[in-house]
Formats: sequence, C-alpha cells, structure tokens
Amino acid sequence: MTALGDGSVRPSVTTGPIRGSRKVHRDAEDGVRVPFRRVELTDGDHFDLYDTSGPYTAGDVDVREGLEKIRAGWISAREPVNGAATQLAWARAGVITPEMRFAALRESLAPEFVRDEVAAGRAVIPANRNHPESEPMVIGKGFLVKVNANIGNSAVTSSVEEEVEKMVWATRWGADTVMDLSTGKRIHETREWIIRNSPVPVGTVPIYQALEKVGGDPAALSWEVYRDTVVEQAEQGVDYMTVHAGVLLRYVPLTARRVTGIVSRGGSIMAAWCLAHHEESFLYTRFAELCEILRQYDVTFSLGDGLRPGSIADANDEAQFAELRTLGELARVARAHDVQVMIEGPGHVPLHKIAENVRLEQEWCDGAPFYTLGPLATDVAPAYDHITSAIGAAQIGALGTAMLCYVTPKEHLGLPDRDDVKTGVITYKIAAHAADLAKGHPGAQAWDDALSRARFEFRWEDQFNLSLDPDTAREFHDRTLPAEPAKTAHFCSMCGPKFCSMRITQDVRRYAEERGLSTVEAIEAGMAEKAHEFDDRGGKVYLPVVD
Amino acid sequence: MTALGDGSVRPSVTTGPIRGSRKVHRDAEDGVRVPFRRVELTDGDHFDLYDTSGPYTAGDVDVREGLEKIRAGWISAREPVNGAATQLAWARAGVITPEMRFAALRESLAPEFVRDEVAAGRAVIPANRNHPESEPMVIGKGFLVKVNANIGNSAVTSSVEEEVEKMVWATRWGADTVMDLSTGKRIHETREWIIRNSPVPVGTVPIYQALEKVGGDPAALSWEVYRDTVVEQAEQGVDYMTVHAGVLLRYVPLTARRVTGIVSRGGSIMAAWCLAHHEESFLYTRFAELCEILRQYDVTFSLGDGLRPGSIADANDEAQFAELRTLGELARVARAHDVQVMIEGPGHVPLHKIAENVRLEQEWCDGAPFYTLGPLATDVAPAYDHITSAIGAAQIGALGTAMLCYVTPKEHLGLPDRDDVKTGVITYKIAAHAADLAKGHPGAQAWDDALSRARFEFRWEDQFNLSLDPDTAREFHDRTLPAEPAKTAHFCSMCGPKFCSMRITQDVRRYAEERGLSTVEAIEAGMAEKAHEFDDRGGKVYLPVVD
Repeated sequence: MTALGDGSVRPSVTTGPIRGSRKVHRDAEDGVRVPFRRVELTDGDHFDLYDTSGPYTAGDVDVREGLEKIRAGWISAREPVNGAATQLAWARAGVITPEMRFAALRESLAPEFVRDEVAAGRAVIPANRNHPESEPMVIGKGFLVKVNANIGNSAVTSSVEEEVEKMVWATRWGADTVMDLSTGKRIHETREWIIRNSPVPVGTVPIYQALEKVGGDPAALSWEVYRDTVVEQAEQGVDYMTVHAGVLLRYVPLTARRVTGIVSRGGSIMAAWCLAHHEESFLYTRFAELCEILRQYDVTFSLGDGLRPGSIADANDEAQFAELRTLGELARVARAHDVQVMIEGPGHVPLHKIAENVRLEQEWCDGAPFYTLGPLATDVAPAYDHITSAIGAAQIGALGTAMLCYVTPKEHLGLPDRDDVKTGVITYKIAAHAADLAKGHPGAQAWDDALSRARFEFRWEDQFNLSLDPDTAREFHDRTLPAEPAKTAHFCSMCGPKFCSMRITQDVRRYAEERGLSTVEAIEAGMAEKAHEFDDRGGKVYLPVVD
Repeated sequence: MTALGDGSVRPSVTTGPIRGSRKVHRDAEDGVRVPFRRVELTDGDHFDLYDTSGPYTAGDVDVREGLEKIRAGWISAREPVNGAATQLAWARAGVITPEMRFAALRESLAPEFVRDEVAAGRAVIPANRNHPESEPMVIGKGFLVKVNANIGNSAVTSSVEEEVEKMVWATRWGADTVMDLSTGKRIHETREWIIRNSPVPVGTVPIYQALEKVGGDPAALSWEVYRDTVVEQAEQGVDYMTVHAGVLLRYVPLTARRVTGIVSRGGSIMAAWCLAHHEESFLYTRFAELCEILRQYDVTFSLGDGLRPGSIADANDEAQFAELRTLGELARVARAHDVQVMIEGPGHVPLHKIAENVRLEQEWCDGAPFYTLGPLATDVAPAYDHITSAIGAAQIGALGTAMLCYVTPKEHLGLPDRDDVKTGVITYKIAAHAADLAKGHPGAQAWDDALSRARFEFRWEDQFNLSLDPDTAREFHDRTLPAEPAKTAHFCSMCGPKFCSMRITQDVRRYAEERGLSTVEAIEAGMAEKAHEFDDRGGKVYLPVVD
C-alpha cells in the first residue's frame, strides 16, 4: 500500500446505507458470502436487491487501508489446470470456483450454469488474482445486463481523491464495473487507490498510460513500452483491459470518407502508429505474447472497437465490420490461451441498425460477451447523450449485449462531475433492467411488481425505497406535497384526491372484496348488486383525503 | 376575448429567438407561410429546423391579444363536402387544403401525400375551425414522429398564468401539440388563454371538466352534461379530444386481477360510472351523436385507452386488448361521419411486448395514427420516468407510432414545473428523432450529419446551435472549459489536447489531402510515402493546442 501515500491525508468517500435499505448477506459453500441490499417494506415483507456497493454501504471504510481481501484464501488455495489459472481454464476443466458460486448466487442462478457459460466463452468473470478485494460477478448474455462507469482524470481536470470517490459513488448507485481512463499525471497512483478500494472489477486501456510514457507521441510507442505497461497494470490488479488490436493498417483508409473518422482514442493512437511506421499494429502481431501475460493474472481481454462509428452516418460501415471480424479472430486466439475475452461495440447507431451489430458480433466472435458504449440513437442532443444512448443501450441489451458502458450528460462536452456520474449510472441501470425484462431474466420482473404494488397501494415509502434512486424520488414527491401525512395519502399531487384513478380502482376492488366478490366471475355476477350499492353510498367512490 | 380577464394583468411568457437561430419562412400557394428555425453555420452554410415555437421566438407577443388568426381566411372561404367541413372530408374529395399544404411544406413532402394519408385515415390534421391561430401539422406514421406535452393545473397547484407559460415553453422546445389537462378551478378560462395563444393544436379530456360540473361524483355524470361540455370546448377551439369510449361495462372486471387496476383517470371515471349505473358507457352508446358534434368543428377524436396497463405486469393483457378492439370499431364509426381519429396507447410495456401493441393497433384500427404515452419500459425508476418512457417511446415510434405523449421526471411523484416540462419535451424530441431515423424519414439524417460534421470539425458554436438544447450544451461545455478560446479549440476537456482522436484523424486526413490523396485508393497507394512523411515531421501528429 506504499503507493497510497504517507497516510497523512484520508480522502473522504461516501459511506452509509442507501436510504431505506440495509446490507444483508447470503452464505454458500467455500466461504462465499454474497451481499444484497434489503428493502424492508411497510407491509411486513422485504425485497432484496442486487448489490454492487461494497462495504461502503455497510459502515465506515478507511481508504488508506483498502478493502478486505475476500478472495485471498481462494486464490492461494487453488491450482492451475493445464498451466492456466484462469476462470476459463477451470470452467473448461469442470471446476466450479468460489467466484462462479458467488456470481451465481448474486443472480439466483445455478453455479453450474455460470461454469458452463464461462467454459463456452459466452460469459466472463473479470477477476485478476491481484485484485482479491473484488466481489465476483459474471458478464454474459445469459445473466443480468451489467453496467460499466468510466472514471479517471484527464490532463485538464480532477484529482486522485475525486476519482476514488467517483468509483465509490458509481458503485453505490449500481455500477457493476468501473474503468479507470486516467490520462493525466499520477496514473499509476490513481489506479492503485482505485483498485485497492474497489469492490467491483476495474478495467483500463493500457495504451493511454503507454502513450504518457513516450511523451504523448504515438509514433514513439513500441511493443516493449506497451508490454511493460500491461505487466505493470496486471500486477496492480486490473481485471480487464481494452486492447485495440483490431485496428489494422489496411483498415485505416476505410475511415477516410467517414463523417467523423476515427473517434476512439485508442483506435486513433494505433492508426497514427500504423501510418507513421507503415507497419501492422504491434497489438495484432504480438497478440499471442499479450495472451501469455494476461493469462498469468487472469486478466480478461476487452477487445476494443477502435474503428467504432462516431456518428449516425458512419454506423455499420465497412471499417467497423472489418475490425469486428478481426476481433473475432483474436477472440479465438485468446481462448486458445485460456484467456477470457469480451468484445467492445459502438458507439453511434440508429435503432434500425442495432440488431445487425449483435448478430454479427455473436456470429463472428463465437458468442463472446458483447460490451457496448450506448449506442447513441441520434447525434442531435449533446447534453442529453445519457438519454440518446440509453435508448440504444436498452435495445442492444435486450438483443443480447452483456454489458453497457454508461454515457453521462457531459459526453461530447466536458468531464462528468459527481452528479453526472450518478445520472449516468442510474440511466444505464434503467436501460439494463429494461433489457433484463425483455430477455426474461428469472426474477427480473419481481422488482417491477413489488414497486408497482407499493404504488397501487399508496405505500409511498416503499415506492421510494424500492426505486433506483430513493433520494430523488422522495425529493420530487416532497416538492409538491412536502407534509409527512402526504406519504400515507391515498392520492398524489398529479391528479389530486378527486381524480385519482388508482384510488377509484381500489375503492371498486375493496367494495367487491368486502362482499366476497374476489374473482372476475364473482364480480361479473355481482355487478347488478354493486350498481345499487354504489347508489346507496351516494354514488361516491371518493373517501376523505387522508385516512 | 372577454374570457381573458380585464386586461389589467399581462402574464409574462418567454419570447425571443432560441440561441443561435432565427425565424425564417417559406411561402407556398394559398398564402401558406411556413416557419422554420434557421441555424446559420460558421462555415457559411445554414440549416433549417422544423419549428413549433410560433410567433414567440420571432418577437414580443401580447397574450391579452392572442395570436394572429392565420387560418381565418382559409376557414371562411371554403365549402363543406357532403355536409362535412373536415380535413378528412376534403381529403376524400381530393381537395388539398391550405392546412395540408402547410403541413407538407413543414416536412418537405408533397401536399398530395398528405392528402392521401389523411383520406386513408392513416393521418390526421387536428385543426378546429375555431382555433384559427394554429399552425397546421400532420400526425401519421408516414410523417415525422410528433410529441405532445401535457400541461394543466390540478386541484393542488398552479395558476392560469403558469399554464400559458408552460404552453409557450413546451412549444419553444419542440412540443407539436399540447394537452390541457386542467382539473381544478377556472378550467374554462385557463383553456381560453391557452387556445388563443397556442400556435400548436390543443387537446383536452372533456370528461375532466364534466366531472367538475357534477361536483366530482362520477355516478352523477350524464350524457347531457358531457355533451354540453364537449360543445363548450369545441366552440372554444379545442383541436382534439380524448374520449374513453372503449371502457365498456363488461371489460371492467377484466382489470380485477391486475397489479395496478385502472390507471387512466378517464378510464376509472367511466368504469365507476358503468358500475354505479350498471349500464353501458354513454360515451359508447352515444358515440354517433358525439361524431356529429365533432364533425361540425373538425375536432379530431383521440380515442383514449382507459384500460391501459399501469405496470409491466399488466401489459398486453385481456383488458387492454379488449378495449383496443372496441376502439377500432369506434374509429370506423368516426370515419363514417368524416371525423378524423387517432388511437391512444400505453402506458407501461416491456420492450419485448411493444411490437404487438403497434401491430394490433394498426390491424384493428385500420392504420389509424397511434398516439402513445411512453410506454415506460420498466416500473423501477420513479424520478427518471422521462427516461424509462423515452426508451419505450423511441422503440414504439420506430415501429410506426405517429405521436408520443411526453412523460416528465415528476411522473408518479408530483406536478411538473417549468424545468420538468423542458426536460420532458427535449427527451421526447430525442425519442421522436431516433424513431424518424429508424423509419428513414426523408431528410431526418441530414440533421445528425450537420451536427456531427460540426463536431468533427471542432465548430463548437455550430454544434451547440444545431442541438436540441443549445443553452444546456453550451453551459456544459463552459463548466469545464469556460474560456472563449475553448470554443475554437481543436480538442475538448474529455481527452485533452494530446488524446483527441478526432484531432488525430483530422491530422491524418489533412495530411493525405495536402498530397492529393483524397480517395481511399490514393491513400492506400500513398501509405508507404506517408509513413516516411510522418517520420519527417518528427512522428508528431499533434499540433499546437489552439490555432
């Protein structure tokens, strides 16, 4: 922990439970202890939510100490198979690791299913042996759609402390992984702080740091500098790395007629290198050596789409799909080395061109997990690109994309602050859950049903607490009807007491139930009687405003 | 204009151009004069945007006077055909009205196409003869997807002045129609102010006012009270009316087992009436008489989905589709009376159940324009339901829905304020435009391309001004890089100068062009040479930060 500074400064991060919930655990064999966020309901029931927030929501955390190394015992106890100590190697050997068991219990699925999906390459468990603090999770189309939040300082703004807090803040609201995309000074130190304190897998793009090492000149990059950077980051515990190994020399001219050329940072760096040297990318020619390094740590490849479209006009073009085909070829090489791999995707894609992206990725990359940035469904709304991209993300998730990289309101305009990070994460949790519903993930709809029942029964507190953002839901309700009795009122400010349709329906239903008319048939049979009863009550279906 | 008060108070509304654009007009025969919002670009070109904002963005407006009656001459000059003076009747007779010409020019389409779509019932032009102030527009799947913004005071909050400003504010940001859903006091007066000052069609739900007239007791409603209310509103100039005539007595029990019962206000009112009287809904039994009234004014029916699902669990159920089938039957009755008609749709629907909604509506209602509320793709995000619903709205729009009713962040929680209205409208313009792209509306992509070109060429001012919300885009950029030179900088705060991928791409492209390598083939041929040239420049592709 020497890299964490002299200990004289203790950065403050957000701790304490999310309003209306508390941390609980479910235990399984191998010492697996899976956290959930339990919402106690006012009707006496409770609802457990998937929990990415780590120890921060259970109590205070000293970030100078780092998180508990919950995987340390598992890591030291087990043996490589066929020379490889990766989740993929064990899965192929039929072994269920504690990580698989942990990830399965989080989603109420069988550990065998996780093992089989990992073995088939349809899922990955990013879990570097040097990041024992992480709570294992699984990324694949058979599982809940995951959300990544990008953090990281740039040459222009922000500090180490801010980035650690962004990680804590992002996972508090549901980020399943974070990527540290720092490009400025103190890259190594920032990353060390983040990894030691991160309960979720951490991803990076090593080419950014490699470029810093050569003074920002792409042409000065070399395999050796890059390799050393990858080793450095793998040693620290980075769980997955974006590698733009599909940007081949012959693909660069395919971008010449595009509206927005190459918009990926890593892609443009490698394109510049290829042109400067008129050589094939070292990421491609040395890919097998890269596999050997990643295998030693069980770092997962995230094969980057350096030629992704940066505008609606460029979606699904020759450059994009040429690279995708190469990523499929590289995915097979990675798996031959027992290295886990996922595939990155666009970008900017109109709704009618999204399905083709998933279809080709699944076909060309043998079902490897797809990990997309949005995609943005239109270019015309800077400042709202969390929304333009959530529209595309929900769609691509429903079609089988395994993880969605969030986009914040500041995309294209500036660096996200704390509020932007939260907005981006919540927006993407919406897209991911909408996709889970569409995919029919077991149990996904139970959450919607629990919240809707609370809504229909005017259990306002339960409605707030079951929502993705209890604080904001409550705050919005308070703005119009601040008084505490309003939290138990059988109406809301939208329609007022007289017009509340849900209240009318409830009155109708209660009326029927009081008379034993609890089924459709009974209600139909009793309709004539009810008509009279309604009259007897003076035709009123409205009761006094607050019970 | 006596209803507008004594003139001593002049409510203030937002006037003046949207930043970076100015009003221009294109003329056509019949005195048609169509407004556009012109963005002058810094490269000497310009881009014209569809304009819903009315005279407010062209100068000051005195709301006590009301807007100019631009349709007055057209209305007085023409004759009914077959006893009907409706856009549908004229379209069927082969007449191209000035309204059709106006709506066509707005979308750069042929007036004949508008006429044919209206004649076939696949499109409507809501244009009450008593709302001559409105700028005609067309709603149908062959046209740009439209957005409606709900405004209106409730028993709990807001004033007449606020509602007029909400209308001006909503249309400023792109609302194609507004619905006045007022339920509190001064309903008539509020509506009069809104209609006299509205450049867009105004919709209402007459049952709300009818209910006020009988003291809020659904059982006390009668055909006579309802009819008189419809006449009163039609006389004022309401352009379309939501009528929940499909909530039949026998459908009410179908909602008994739902998670959220009946969530439509109008639907629950009529359900309560049916149960109280044990009679079929007067909206259904008197529907032909209603048609006669609406025909006299050319009010368009918006057949309401009183049994729409209010939760994911209730989507696409028997109650919803039973009502939809009845709406189809009523649509045929309306058209037999030469009355225009559209069909309202859900609500809460998971992504995989959206397509069935459009398919059945188109099939059962003979292609009548579909007008949906969202739908929300999940229930779990109160405070973000503009986003949950934009996800569903973009999807249902891409599949052929003609108009989307916006949802604001306050949905389910409180009444929208001015900021919420803007957020709701912008969010829905995103969904609508994403759908336009997916549908391949002629010219839709030109907007994205213009903005993306500006982005790629670092024309920041053009990027802001072409966006849906120039003020917020600029503000977000200013927050990270406030200095004026940053507006011409060839990088942004996201990556900083060294990592700007678009800059690198431009450098590569410029380099090629300087050597006449302007095509893909030439670039390929020249690659070897370029490699040397890059070396000669010291391998640098980065230029000084600000030119």
